[in-house]
Amino acid sequence: MKKPLILISNDDGIEAEGIKALTKEIRQFAEVFVAAPHTQQSAVGHSITMANPIRARKTLMFKDFYGYAVEGTPADSVKIAVHTLLKGRKIDLLISGINQGANTAINIIYSGTVSAATEGTILGIPSIAMSLTSYTYPDFSIAAKFASRLAKIVLKKGLPPGTLLNVNVPAIKKVKGALLTMQGRSTWDDTYEIRLDPAKRQYFWLTGSMKKLDKTKDFDVKAVDEGYISVTPIHYDLTDYKFYDKMKDWKL
Amino acid sequence: MKKPLILISNDDGIEAEGIKALTKEIRQFAEVFVAAPHTQQSAVGHSITMANPIRARKTLMFKDFYGYAVEGTPADSVKIAVHTLLKGRKIDLLISGINQGANTAINIIYSGTVSAATEGTILGIPSIAMSLTSYTYPDFSIAAKFASRLAKIVLKKGLPPGTLLNVNVPAIKKVKGALLTMQGRSTWDDTYEIRLDPAKRQYFWLTGSMKKLDKTKDFDVKAVDEGYISVTPIHYDLTDYKFYDKMKDWKL
Repeated sequence: MKKPLILISNDDGIEAEGIKALTKEIRQFAEVFVAAPHTQQSAVGHSITMANPIRARKTLMFKDFYGYAVEGTPADSVKIAVHTLLKGRKIDLLISGINQGANTAINIIYSGTVSAATEGTILGIPSIAMSLTSYTYPDFSIAAKFASRLAKIVLKKGLPPGTLLNVNVPAIKKVKGALLTMQGRSTWDDTYEIRLDPAKRQYFWLTGSMKKLDKTKDFDVKAVDEGYISVTPIHYDLTDYKFYDKMKDWKL
Repeated sequence: MKKPLILISNDDGIEAEGIKALTKEIRQFAEVFVAAPHTQQSAVGHSITMANPIRARKTLMFKDFYGYAVEGTPADSVKIAVHTLLKGRKIDLLISGINQGANTAINIIYSGTVSAATEGTILGIPSIAMSLTSYTYPDFSIAAKFASRLAKIVLKKGLPPGTLLNVNVPAIKKVKGALLTMQGRSTWDDTYEIRLDPAKRQYFWLTGSMKKLDKTKDFDVKAVDEGYISVTPIHYDLTDYKFYDKMKDWKL
């Protein structure tokens, strides 16, 4: 049987450990093509580059495996892979990650990892965003193995047009399993530290911590806190249908 | 009666005509505070700056009116206004815009204009994103007047937590009125032009046009095409509840 073609991208950049671990795992059953930003692109949201040209450079990722380093954002990397580097080939699945750091709750809208998967979905490819919920935890093996398992399920069952899966894996040695979840309601309690530069001019630096507002493991934040992998189906139809119905009596 | 305090931001930068027109109009009934990117920030999506410090500089926008030029993204501008520049004050409303160019259908997820309004919503402020559907049309007066009208409605009626309004005004002399709409399903038919630099190295430049897939003026793209102002309530709960229910029988 012909191997599936899987496009891999991320937002931590092509040299990150997470994308290497993911690529090695997925290559065990699929043909893998990597196109990822050449540098770290965290919190870029769903940016695309229009005002400037983009370059893509073939680069050795590890022994005998080359990927493309794209001078752009995660969404740029996916767009350019689909439209030029893999032009004409059917891409069976896209996986973005494995990100270092959670992409749960409100963080989803700032996430470059999710943005690469969203761009895949827009372009008609079933897509998965994978994150490990720690900036420092060195072991991607559980996340990579779950990505492989979920990839096979999605290759078999498919995803509806416009829907992608956002996965967060707790950074612990033994996970309790995987749960279907919803995007959490937790938000950031952020502030700016005000500092002075050597010339005594003020500057601001963003800092903050998460306000955890989710009570049950039906929500991604709480699920990973309790030791489960969270799998949230998300989409990019932002219409608030509930309020849409209520607004019908507004005199616009 | 005390005037409402309205925060204005955008993604075209503080020197853009659209934010000036909006500010002049809204000042007629409200106290206005402007915090906007110092340069054009289109298609930045919902980016925030974490790795670098940010500066904010008081700058003359027009006769007797100062705003703050923020060295960051639209979301940064809103965050910094709320957390530092206006710290401790109750902000009654945020308006982002008036953007040059439509923010309808899939464009909403790439939009810096919408992102500033989303950040306002996250921070608990009723928020409106305003766009004029042309990059060149010089007359912001219809859009500014509608922003003023809608602002007064929202100040009176409020918006639910997590919901914002995304408004697109057709760039024509006489609009037919305003319609409550949903986010359109139209997408981009994009490609990259492949070019060679003087050293004969390849580079890529994004180009494309919109595939208009919306048939009725219940959707934003079609509404503005038919001469109506579109008002779409949107939110940032990305959970796909329909597919969530279907996924319950997946063995994760």
